[in-house]
Amino acid sequence: MSDPELTRMRASIDNLDTALICLLAERFKITKEVGLLKAAKGMPPADLERETQQIARLRQLAEQSNLDPEFAEKFLNFIVSEVVRHHERIAQGGAR
Amino acid sequence: MSDPELTRMRASIDNLDTALICLLAERFKITKEVGLLKAAKGMPPADLERETQQIARLRQLAEQSNLDPEFAEKFLNFIVSEVVRHHERIAQGGAR
Repeated sequence: MSDPELTRMRASIDNLDTALICLLAERFKITKEVGLLKAAKGMPPADLERETQQIARLRQLAEQSNLDPEFAEKFLNFIVSEVVRHHERIAQGGAR
Repeated sequence: MSDPELTRMRASIDNLDTALICLLAERFKITKEVGLLKAAKGMPPADLERETQQIARLRQLAEQSNLDPEFAEKFLNFIVSEVVRHHERIAQGGAR
């Protein structure tokens, strides 16, 4: 498949993916700090009220950006489940 | 939970999430075009060779950004499964 239009679009997708990976790396740096703070202060890893607010905000942002709000919610759940896994590891004393 | 440090970190997470949602919206705009092109030219929705290249590239990028390469691969699979779902809908004649 060497369609030139497909090649051009794939180059843009690769650029967007590079940006996405970098932003995710920054996001996990911060959530790691959040995890350490929560563990130090004895706060629970998950926070349902915060997650509810985040979902509402991201669904609204998705609508404004012409992205499926259902997908935005699935995306946040996907990220948050990874974050909670990290926080639980931190709470258990793991250094990773 | 009104810890000022937590509030500050959460504001950064929200900013990163805004950027992530906007980039994802752009990415799906392009993959929608890819889907239309593939349907018009009778190409299959999924492309295993391309996906293998993407996974290798994103794992390497993740390592450079200090992000878990396993997570980067899970992230790409999560996005690609949504994209393939869109492409199958396009191939079936759905306009969504």
